[in-house]
Amino acid sequence: MSFAASVLTLYPEMFPGALGLSLAGRALEARTWSLEAIQIRDFATDRHRTVDDTPAGGGAGMVMRADVLAKAIDHVSPPGDARPRLLMSPRGKPLTQARVRELAAGPGAVILCGRFEGVDQRVIEARGLEEVSVGDFILSGGEPAALVLLDAVVRLLPGVMGNAVSGEEESFENGLLEHPHYTRPQEFEGRQIPEVLTSGNHKKIADWRRAEAEKLTQERRPDLLAAPAHPLAK
Amino acid sequence: MSFAASVLTLYPEMFPGALGLSLAGRALEARTWSLEAIQIRDFATDRHRTVDDTPAGGGAGMVMRADVLAKAIDHVSPPGDARPRLLMSPRGKPLTQARVRELAAGPGAVILCGRFEGVDQRVIEARGLEEVSVGDFILSGGEPAALVLLDAVVRLLPGVMGNAVSGEEESFENGLLEHPHYTRPQEFEGRQIPEVLTSGNHKKIADWRRAEAEKLTQERRPDLLAAPAHPLAK
Repeated sequence: MSFAASVLTLYPEMFPGALGLSLAGRALEARTWSLEAIQIRDFATDRHRTVDDTPAGGGAGMVMRADVLAKAIDHVSPPGDARPRLLMSPRGKPLTQARVRELAAGPGAVILCGRFEGVDQRVIEARGLEEVSVGDFILSGGEPAALVLLDAVVRLLPGVMGNAVSGEEESFENGLLEHPHYTRPQEFEGRQIPEVLTSGNHKKIADWRRAEAEKLTQERRPDLLAAPAHPLAK
Repeated sequence: MSFAASVLTLYPEMFPGALGLSLAGRALEARTWSLEAIQIRDFATDRHRTVDDTPAGGGAGMVMRADVLAKAIDHVSPPGDARPRLLMSPRGKPLTQARVRELAAGPGAVILCGRFEGVDQRVIEARGLEEVSVGDFILSGGEPAALVLLDAVVRLLPGVMGNAVSGEEESFENGLLEHPHYTRPQEFEGRQIPEVLTSGNHKKIADWRRAEAEKLTQERRPDLLAAPAHPLAK
């Protein structure tokens, strides 16, 4: 059974986009996963195909209507559909590699891309939408975030990466940023590859990489080291 | 002077992608910003157009070569180019709305999209690349992350959003997640819009929204409240 993604959006033409190329694109062709992009506007009930209205209580921007979104969600995800329903939103829980892994192990995902000021809270509650954030910044809509989420998930599907399962990922999962990389040429603009890496001493290489990863994480992301679950947490 | 983005990638056909539509697409047509996607492979020096090699010290995957990347960077960003040079990488500093604002106020950005296991550390140092992360997860390459970064930046360029500058953004910048939104219809599947929002009492509405935003942030993102710079930090 392949991973089935249904994206609800006002811009279905943004999909598959970058996901139609490279690893994700080849996996799409090979039917390792499937992608449908659904136009939310098709579920509007008036002849202007209205999907939004002014915010209750006033304020800037427009809010996406609960009734229109509910119809769109029910159409792609009828009762019994086991796929999680995600809403891409900066208010959401930050996406992690652990959540990406869970999603990749499941049947797929229904992904609602918010636009405008936001989405009526009642449809979030009534349809059990899981709000997911890809970072502490604001996008023009959920679509670029959905592309990121699906890219992260698809590369973990069986067969997509071959046996090139990335050390980067493992090292991320051990709670550290990755150590620096080097490759040929031996000298670049007077800069050498660190001697230890060409020593052939596997133990020394592993120790050096670990120390560099810890140093980098300490410098850039002390928050990772401070997480209660971190192996190096005090 | 418009914002000039140069993206270095092995998949130039991924651009403009989603950035060619909606807000960003209209701004691209209006020349509020420009985008060039450069094929890194064009700067390889052998007839196989090789851009990567095995990691020094061993291990899985391939590493992008410093010499090839330096040639590509120097081609799009000669000395005197004031644009920051970004490398999309999960090892980077997490992107924030504050950094997005700084970028939008500047002349543009040179964005290098990493692929494979990573990029030779020496080109990061020699060309002063700023490593930027869009989250604690692993992508197939830097391209989806570049799309996200540019989307966030472009919507802040003068004229792109019109005067619909989003309250969402302001509320994000005050260090809180945004309060819930509601719009018509008044009743949706038995759920009402909260009474306070239809009271017409602006003070009460503002207080309610603030309280909801604080509650939501406390529940989902206590890390935001704990940040030393946070207005509510203890």
